Amino acid sequence: MPSILDNFSTDNPVFSTYVFYTTVLIIKTLFMALLTVVHRVKNKAVASKEDSPKGIVLFSKDVERQRRAHLNDLENIPIFIIVAFLYTLTSPSTFIAVNLIRLFTLCRIVHTFVYAIYPTQPARGISFGIGILITFYMSFQVAIYFY
Amino acid sequence: MPSILDNFSTDNPVFSTYVFYTTVLIIKTLFMALLTVVHRVKNKAVASKEDSPKGIVLFSKDVERQRRAHLNDLENIPIFIIVAFLYTLTSPSTFIAVNLIRLFTLCRIVHTFVYAIYPTQPARGISFGIGILITFYMSFQVAIYFY
Amino acid sequence: MPSILDNFSTDNPVFSTYVFYTTVLIIKTLFMALLTVVHRVKNKAVASKEDSPKGIVLFSKDVERQRRAHLNDLENIPIFIIVAFLYTLTSPSTFIAVNLIRLFTLCRIVHTFVYAIYPTQPARGISFGIGILITFYMSFQVAIYFY
Repeated sequence: MPSILDNFSTDNPVFSTYVFYTTVLIIKTLFMALLTVVHRVKNKAVASKEDSPKGIVLFSKDVERQRRAHLNDLENIPIFIIVAFLYTLTSPSTFIAVNLIRLFTLCRIVHTFVYAIYPTQPARGISFGIGILITFYMSFQVAIYFY
Repeated sequence: MPSILDNFSTDNPVFSTYVFYTTVLIIKTLFMALLTVVHRVKNKAVASKEDSPKGIVLFSKDVERQRRAHLNDLENIPIFIIVAFLYTLTSPSTFIAVNLIRLFTLCRIVHTFVYAIYPTQPARGISFGIGILITFYMSFQVAIYFY
Repeated sequence: MPSILDNFSTDNPVFSTYVFYTTVLIIKTLFMALLTVVHRVKNKAVASKEDSPKGIVLFSKDVERQRRAHLNDLENIPIFIIVAFLYTLTSPSTFIAVNLIRLFTLCRIVHTFVYAIYPTQPARGISFGIGILITFYMSFQVAIYFY
């Protein structure tokens, strides 16, 4: 009898694609933390007084923008990773699943670029929206399969 | 020999319940991002100047409340989803497991309502506290099982 | 034929260690939420007016520091839990895997102590950095294995 566990294999292109892009998304999110440190040093804007030689805490628009971009990743990426894992267990079409995972990853990389590096609208809204739609679609597919 | 993998099946009511309510919690959390956008538009309070036609950044108590409610979800929901997954692997009582998952989901929906939509205390504190207690209980059960 | 599922067992010390320290990290993160409540009460600094008997909202450096420490956990811990799960599926060396998981957990506990309780640099930077490096290392190992 086929089991949901059969999807959980390196021979399944959906699962391999899922795991590979999960690591891409995680490495990308880790860089957000490092970029915040870079912005803090460049703008001499730290949040805690033990981080500054003179104990001065400054505010910087650059740092706040970087932190918002990072927070946006935290709002979207872990949830996607969880739901995409459950989605691979529903034996979806390889073509659809593989391309949705790739598209989500692309959208999040574009989102960071047009939010934190080179602020652009409506590119930021579009990349954010497509990511949300993909997560919604996968959630509904999983809910229908397991209901 | 029974294996923890036996729990990982659509025939296991604990696992099916877990996956279904996970999608409910994820869809609920996605709506928090959309609600923030609604509040930003209604109050004309954006955080980045490229979002406003006149480049004006306003502050709004409504938006900040909505963001705190969203952050509270991010603090509690992904952690619950992770620990509840491990908890289903410990072959818990179906009755207890299914009802704890349902109760956590209910508490988080109530929490959003009494935080972001119709601010009420102590309803917010109670719904937050029950969610934390359920996550603690499951964590201890998992720790004991795998220690 | 060996399968990645063979790693998914209570007989595998890497998997048992992973699950046990995941619960330690989750319980530790839950305490961050409770500590924020303690700081809010002690400093009478609440964020929502329904939380104060007189409806007064105060700002407190203590509360903001505690919230930054909590947010730092949210930036690092769920991502680690996800990537360490995938890493256990790559059949890593037991010695390396078990000690990396222990070291990450230790670093996050130290990080909380030197951030929220007794602010100290460079201890905070070092514990944060080691955690990031471990997550990077595991991500690369997973990406190579599944590519």
